[in-house]
Parts: sequence; C-alpha cells; structure tokens
Amino acid sequence: MATQLDIRTAELREPVDAVTYLFTRLKQIGIDSVHGLPGDFNLVALDYLSDCGLKWVGNCNELNAGYAADGYARIKGISAVITTFGVGELSLPNAIAGSYAEFVPVVHIVGTPSTISQANGMLLHHTLGNGNFQVFADIASRLAVDVAKLSDPRDIPAQIDHALRECYVQSRPVYITLPTDIVRKKVEGERLKTKIDLSPHSNDPEKEDYVVDVVLRYLTQAKNAVILVDSCAIRHRVLDETRKFIEKSGLPVFVAPMGKGAVDETLPTFGGVYAGDGSNPGVQERVESADLLLTIGSVKSDFNTAGFTYRTSQLRTIDFHSTYIRVRHSEYPGIGMKGVLRKLIDRLPKLNIEPGPTPPQNLIPQAEDASDPAVTHGWFWPRMGQWLQEGDIVLTETGTSNYGIFNARFPKNVTNISQILWGSIGYATGSCQGVALAARELGGKHRTILFTGDGSFQLTAQELSTMIRHKLNPIIFIVCNDGYTIERFIHGMDAGYNDIQNWRYKDLPAAFGAQEGTYKTYQVRTKDEVDALFQDENFSKAPYLQLVELYMPKYDAPAALKLTAEASARNNAKT
Amino acid sequence: MATQLDIRTAELREPVDAVTYLFTRLKQIGIDSVHGLPGDFNLVALDYLSDCGLKWVGNCNELNAGYAADGYARIKGISAVITTFGVGELSLPNAIAGSYAEFVPVVHIVGTPSTISQANGMLLHHTLGNGNFQVFADIASRLAVDVAKLSDPRDIPAQIDHALRECYVQSRPVYITLPTDIVRKKVEGERLKTKIDLSPHSNDPEKEDYVVDVVLRYLTQAKNAVILVDSCAIRHRVLDETRKFIEKSGLPVFVAPMGKGAVDETLPTFGGVYAGDGSNPGVQERVESADLLLTIGSVKSDFNTAGFTYRTSQLRTIDFHSTYIRVRHSEYPGIGMKGVLRKLIDRLPKLNIEPGPTPPQNLIPQAEDASDPAVTHGWFWPRMGQWLQEGDIVLTETGTSNYGIFNARFPKNVTNISQILWGSIGYATGSCQGVALAARELGGKHRTILFTGDGSFQLTAQELSTMIRHKLNPIIFIVCNDGYTIERFIHGMDAGYNDIQNWRYKDLPAAFGAQEGTYKTYQVRTKDEVDALFQDENFSKAPYLQLVELYMPKYDAPAALKLTAEASARNNAKT
Repeated sequence: MATQLDIRTAELREPVDAVTYLFTRLKQIGIDSVHGLPGDFNLVALDYLSDCGLKWVGNCNELNAGYAADGYARIKGISAVITTFGVGELSLPNAIAGSYAEFVPVVHIVGTPSTISQANGMLLHHTLGNGNFQVFADIASRLAVDVAKLSDPRDIPAQIDHALRECYVQSRPVYITLPTDIVRKKVEGERLKTKIDLSPHSNDPEKEDYVVDVVLRYLTQAKNAVILVDSCAIRHRVLDETRKFIEKSGLPVFVAPMGKGAVDETLPTFGGVYAGDGSNPGVQERVESADLLLTIGSVKSDFNTAGFTYRTSQLRTIDFHSTYIRVRHSEYPGIGMKGVLRKLIDRLPKLNIEPGPTPPQNLIPQAEDASDPAVTHGWFWPRMGQWLQEGDIVLTETGTSNYGIFNARFPKNVTNISQILWGSIGYATGSCQGVALAARELGGKHRTILFTGDGSFQLTAQELSTMIRHKLNPIIFIVCNDGYTIERFIHGMDAGYNDIQNWRYKDLPAAFGAQEGTYKTYQVRTKDEVDALFQDENFSKAPYLQLVELYMPKYDAPAALKLTAEASARNNAKT
Repeated sequence: MATQLDIRTAELREPVDAVTYLFTRLKQIGIDSVHGLPGDFNLVALDYLSDCGLKWVGNCNELNAGYAADGYARIKGISAVITTFGVGELSLPNAIAGSYAEFVPVVHIVGTPSTISQANGMLLHHTLGNGNFQVFADIASRLAVDVAKLSDPRDIPAQIDHALRECYVQSRPVYITLPTDIVRKKVEGERLKTKIDLSPHSNDPEKEDYVVDVVLRYLTQAKNAVILVDSCAIRHRVLDETRKFIEKSGLPVFVAPMGKGAVDETLPTFGGVYAGDGSNPGVQERVESADLLLTIGSVKSDFNTAGFTYRTSQLRTIDFHSTYIRVRHSEYPGIGMKGVLRKLIDRLPKLNIEPGPTPPQNLIPQAEDASDPAVTHGWFWPRMGQWLQEGDIVLTETGTSNYGIFNARFPKNVTNISQILWGSIGYATGSCQGVALAARELGGKHRTILFTGDGSFQLTAQELSTMIRHKLNPIIFIVCNDGYTIERFIHGMDAGYNDIQNWRYKDLPAAFGAQEGTYKTYQVRTKDEVDALFQDENFSKAPYLQLVELYMPKYDAPAALKLTAEASARNNAKT
C-alpha cells in the first residue's frame, strides 16, 4: 500500500532506494567498511551494503562495534556503525559518548520498526512495552550533534547530507534512524552526483586578520615562546598547519598526552610530553619558563594534566581552538584555528628564539638497576619507543599504558590512540579491531600495536575473534599485573574489588577459532625476554595476529599515573 | 571543610555514613551480593560492602553486570548493581531497559564525582568535556521509575527508602547517584530500625468488592472457562494467589511463553503453552473455544503471541493486571490483581466446568524419524523437559532456545527465565551468572541450566569467567548452529551478516582460568549422544561448571520460532 508520503517514482529524476542513498554517501565520504551487528530491524538494509561498495564487519557485540567504529574513524576520518532498535543501540552509548567527548566522527545508524508499527504503538519486541518508540532516540540525542529520523522520502536526501556534514565538520557522532518500511522507499538520487561539502566553516576574514595581527604582535615580542600541541589539533584536522607552523617558526614544541603523535618527534625542536608534574624529564621547566605559550587544540582535563598541575599563566598564553582563539584573557569566538594558523604561517617573520633549558632527548634513564629482571614501567616504555617503526599506530588503554607511552619517543609518522578524557577501559581492544582494519584499507606500511591491561582486556576480549575473522595482524600486548592497577593507585591498593580472575590469555586466539599457523602468542616475564622479543624479526614484521602476555609487577606503575591518581584521590575526597 | 549541608553529628540520634545507610537497606530487602565493576568514583563506597554484610561480585564488564543483576533479581526478588560515572553506567542501558520492559527490580547505584567538582564544572575524565554532569542521569531517568541524586544528608535516608520502595513495588529499575564526597557524610541512622514498607498499594475496598462481584458474575455463568497465566503474574508477585485460584477453581490452565514456569505443569488441569498459532498441540483449539478466558498478568507482545496470532475475543475475556482489571471492555483502573484474586479465591463457589478438547500431555511426537542422527529442535526439547528436575532454574536465550522451551513440560517448581519482550541477545549468559549465584544463596536444590546460541553467547562470553571465579555450577548448553538462526528465519537465510566466527567453546573455561577438575566440557552431535548425556548421573548432579557444545542443524528451528519470524518479516515489510 502506497502512503501519501511516497513520491511517485515518475517525479524523480534519478530514483534510488533510501538505503542506497545513505550507503552511497557513506562510501563517498571515505568509509569502506561498516561496523555493527545484524538485528531483525536492520537486516534488509544490510543486503544493500555490498552493492554500495561497503564491507560488513559483523562485531561480537554492539559496545565493541562502537569502540571499533571510533578507532576506524580516528584513522580514516569518519566511520559508521549499524545496530538494531533498542537492544542493539542501547549497548553502545558508552562508546558513542567517548566519541562525543573526544571529537570522533561516528555515524550511528539504527534499523527501527516500520513507521506504521510506530504510529500504531504496537507491542513489539525490543520496546519498553509502553508504546513509546521515541525514548531511544531521545537518549541518543544527548550524545549526538545531529539526529535524523528518516521517514519522508522528500526530506531523506537532505537529512542524510546534513547529518553526515555535521558529523564530519563538528567531528562528533550523529544518529540516524532507518525504519524497515523506509529502507526501499524511492528518493531523489540526482544529488549523489555532487559530493557533500565537508569543508569547515570559514572565519570572517576581517576578524580573522585582526586576530592574526594580535597573535603576531605577542609572538614577535616574545623571546622565549614554545608551542604545545594537543588532541584537538588532531581531531579538528589542523596537523598540516601545525607542522608548517612548527617548521617555519623554529620554536620548541611539546605535546600534551592527548596530543602524543601529533608532532614529528624526531625534529630537533621537539622537547617531549608536557603534562605539568607528569611531564618528561626537563620538560616542565622548559614549558613553564617560556615567556609565551602557544597551545594548539588544548584540552586541560585532569588526566591530560597529571591532575591539573600546569603552572602556566593565561597572561603568557595564546590558545588556538576549533571554534575560538584566546589571546591572554581576550577571547575571539567564532574564529577557528585552521584559518588563523594558515595566515600566521604566511605572515610569520623571523622570530627571536633564546634557547631555554633543553630537555634530554634520550628517555632511557642513565642509572638503572639492571639486576632486577622484572619488567618495570620505567624500564619498558622508553625501550618500546625505540622498537617502534615509522607508520606505526599504537593504541594505549586507559591505565598504565596511556601513561607509560609518555616515555616512548616516537619515530616519524606514528599515531597514538587513547582515550585520556573519556577513559573507558575496554575501549582500546575494541578500537584495535577498527584501527587494524582501517590501517589495512589505507595501504602502506602501518603496524597496529595495542597495549592494554589484563583487567581492561577482559571487558571486550571477544573482539579478538573479529580480528581473527578478518585476518587482521595487530600486535597485542596484554600487561599482566593482576588487576585494575590505575584503580589501585587511586584507592584500594590491596582491595579485593581491584582483583580480577587471571586468564590464560595466550589460549584465547585458538579458542576464538584462529587456525594453527595464522597467529602466534608469547609470554614475556623479564627484561631479557623483552629485549629478545623486540629483536625477533618475524615478530616485528607483524605477519599475522600476535598476542603477548607481558608480565609486570603488581605494584608498579608509570610515574605520571601515580601523580595523577594521587591528585584524583585528593579531589574525590575533598569535602 | 564542612559545608552548610553537613548535619552536625550531635543533632543525629544514630549517625551513620550515607553509604552505610544505603548498603544496610540493600541487605535488609534481601540482597546478599552486589554486582558491578570498580571505578575511581565508586571505590571508597565499595570498601563498605563487607561491613554491611554484602558480597562483591566484580563482573567482567558493566553490560554483563546489568544482565547478571537482572537474573539475580528474578530469583531473589531484587538486586543491585554498582558502576562508575559515565563510562561505567553508559554500558548498561540495554540491560536496564530490559529490566524496565520486563518488570525486574534492579537498583542501579552510580559513584559520581564529588558535588564540589560538579558545582565547579571541572574538566574531569569520564565527562563529555562540556561541564555537564547531569546528562547521564537525564539518560538514566528515561529507564528508571525513580532517580535519587544523593547530596543533602538531611534528605538521603528518605530518598533511599523511597527509591527502594518504588523499585520493589513497581518492579522496575531505579537509579541512585552517590558522589564521592557524600559517601561518608553522616545521616540519621535511627530509621534503619524500621524496615522499608514494601507492601503493594492496596485497592479501594469498595471498588475492589465491586470488581470481584463483576468477575464472579461472569465466572459463574461460564460453562467452559480457562485460565491463562503470563509474565506479570510472576513479576508482580501473585504466583501464590494464582496457584490457589487454579486449585480452588479447578479450571484448565495454560501459560503464555513469558509465563512459562509460573504454574505447576504436573497438575492434571495444566494444558500447556498458549501462543496463538505457536501453541503446543491442541492448546490453541482448547483456549480459543473457551467461553471465558481469564488472563493473569498478560503481555500480548509479538514474540509472546507468535506474531499477534491470538484468536480470542475481548467479549469473552477478563484480564487481571497489577494496576487495573478489565472485564470484557469495562476497565477498572487503580485496582490491582493481588487483592482481587485473594477475594475471588475466598468467595469462589463451585464452578460449572464442561470438559473441552484435551491437549495431549506428552509433548514427544508419536511418529518420529529416528534414522537421522542429527539433533533437531522438534526432537530435543520435549526430551530435555523430561531430564529436568524439581527446583531447576532454566535460562533460555532469545532465539531457538526461548521458543524450543515451549515444548519442554516442566516438573514441579521449575523457573524459566527469558527475555521474550525485550529480547536482547547475550542477556541469558550474563543473567546466568546472577541466577546461579542467587540460587546458591537461596539454598536448597536448584540447578541453573542455560540454553544459549553460539551467536548470542559471543556477546557476553566473558561472564563465564565470573562464574568460574565464584565457583558457580551452572550447566551451559551452547546451541552450535553456525550463527544467528532467529535472524535467518526473519531475513537473510544465507546472508553473510548472519554468520559468525566459529569458536572452540569448550576451550574457554580453561582459557578463562578454570583449574583442571573444577569443570567439565562436552560435545554432543547426535540423538544418541544427547540421550547418553542426560543419563550421565555425574552430569545431572551438576557438581561443578559444565559446558556443552550442542550441535544442531543450521536450518532447523522450533516451529513457533518459524511462525513468529515469518510474522515479524511480514510486519517489517508492510508499507
């Protein structure tokens, strides 16, 4: 039965099914694989993926699919995840909230009951049983920058284009509902010939010029300026401008923990990680003694600042953000950093640069007790950095790994993925599947290397199965140290609730169906064994999926984690 | 620093910490173990569990913890799950929504940042980075019958008591936030001496009498009445009244799928499962030819009615619900079934009962092709029913299992747990952990038996680890049939998206750390092997955790599933 909302096909210049329109757009904006799970309200739509050039991942559960989509988007620029109504979609708000908090563009598409069932308030499975079909979209709207409920074929192409543009430009999740009876409704396909405009909002030129002049005035007066690059430089796509600005200015450059990987760490001007009291050796002195601090995409969250321990003054700071610039205490709303940085690079004169204290380039401590064979964090991470190769993508789970990585100096073009603001444990393993798949699709030489904790791994362990299923080749390090170490350092060092069931992690690939010869596992318990592993050429070549049980002492943690955890405990206890 | 909201301890007759008040109340209402995961905003609270007599479960992830809490509540009457702010709580809306839809009382407690951090809008980890600390509670409020944000010590005892009463009486989830700085605030503990009133709202006696008279009038006039017991009879705790009404009336009694286990199936008046076209043999004829149908706690959802295939008339129906009674088309709002059923039992005269068509008692088909060794659903489930023992608790996952169980006739006092309305796959495995723990705490002889599918098991597989850790002894059947069978029957019989990675399920207990001799696994591929397994005394005694890979043909499914799936596909496609 045709409803009054149908468009007569004859009225359309190029009729296409609504789902074809949506999937074609996903493909056009750079998505090649779609994450998610099948569910009865999305099955018919899934039939259309392959004709639109999209591959289906098929994750083990929806939360993991959401994490994987987040990881995929961090590598390929945007991603999509498809779930079913109610039961599917309500498993991934945690993943979507993480993408929202950390500015990752994920398109969440939900197959819903037909518009007819909804209008009739039918008592369907996957509902709350109260006839309210809107409650899940209401929930999703709190964690999305656009909600597109597809129902009228006349509106669908514009709704889809608007949602995808907002997702990309704001770099945050959007939510699209696709009812079963809408999937095959004909919509106008002609506009598919024109790509969606994904360019950022441009600044008002006069205001932009004004801001550039102000910045230049302070910058040319400074004798001792430094640059600090942070997460939003990555997430709002100004890495190219940042690189040129660093090179042309010749200023010393540092990264915040969330900005790790944003800057070429082999540059002579690169100084290391700045995180207040949790900085690399010598870095805090250098940054905090600068007479001008230029921050690009800064996020001053507790875990990104080792517990709010910056000792910098706003009077000596210029902040570049995606939606505003702040020079000392003057704010310039509506002026994004991309345009400002471009003009700044063009107009930059030669700067006064007085050398400040120089942080040591080598992060390996001079004096070390080599007599203890145990693999400590202080020993491990600088050496791991030396094992990394150009092009690597390194995922570090919230916990010891995302603090340990501060002390790994990267080769060129290494990407670091972690969730320092949102901090959901289990994220990194799910994300690793999406990252490894995206890396393969990118081509070139990109190893995907995951560092996670034993406790964290357990939350999302089954995504190892999806990696096996798709023949992905990540190197997975599971830090085996008997539980939730980051929690121990916040509260309950020996409390039972921070313990876990110890698994035989290296038996999991086989249990998850990996065939003999298509994977390899390792157990590493001493410094010598770590050294041997890093020297193993076959291991380093990453020919197939590899899983390393890396044993570290239960009560050891990176110094920056200890500082942050103490600050967190103090803050929690404040009354 | 004491704030103006602190109560001077001298003003309190029996000062107790806020968290002690909360946990003492949990213990008083029948909770002995608390599910959940540690997270930095709940750690200090967790220290108090054991002094309040509560055990900590420590699940592998929050969604699983939510499912486990749901299962625990279905056995022990109520349950609690503790998560941390943002990242923890947003992983379980799917579990909580399931508890909401299916009337299961779960207390969800979230450890949040301190009230001071919230007031200052601090940029903390586990936030969206926008200073909005209320967004997660706003989301939770859509899936809870009460939200208690604990902050003023004067209000806390009343807030807690109100939330727990609403949780129990409405039999749905509530949400409680416990900020880190509130945990140890002193509150008035004197009221802990008086237990929370958990009695249901009582009916207006005059109106109740009126309704009872109306019901009795129709009941005594009927010649051929039957009773249909459904899920809300279980969830709203009228099983005792239902049992007495069945016995005293002598009427034939049937159960809907969601009501399976509510009625003693060994009674001579028990006729089987009524689900419209998906009923047990002979049942549809009997129920639909009755001149009066008395439904107790009916839920006419698609999957509970084999796709809306009841052919009953409201003109011949009386519906007993928790908040209203409906006699033909006359509704009596505000009158709950508990009081009405009690009076009905007291006043019931001897009824006219004319025998109707009698459904066969034996569900094993007379003529069967025994030459095919494959274990089909039609063959398996009636025989499984004969293997069950008094006191068993049987979990059946959404899919082939929750339809197959229609054809298992239960011994006395068998409980069936499934999620026929909400239907989230993965639920049953998570729930199994909570059920097995609750069964152990109940004492007596209760085996916990799980039937799940291979696809479903993969969503929540790691909770097997929690069962091992707590030395629980469930018998777990994994129906291995190469993927999402229920989806295949709805759409995409051979589509790749309905396939899964095949695991070596029986290797998982060891990989999850189970010690040799503390568990056992089986592979069963033929009818003879099923028979042998059911005759294995050690297996049936359930001395430790047991996992059975039960291989069934890929394209086989219970008849009721096929009917329901076809109806679902038709409904999805309607335009």
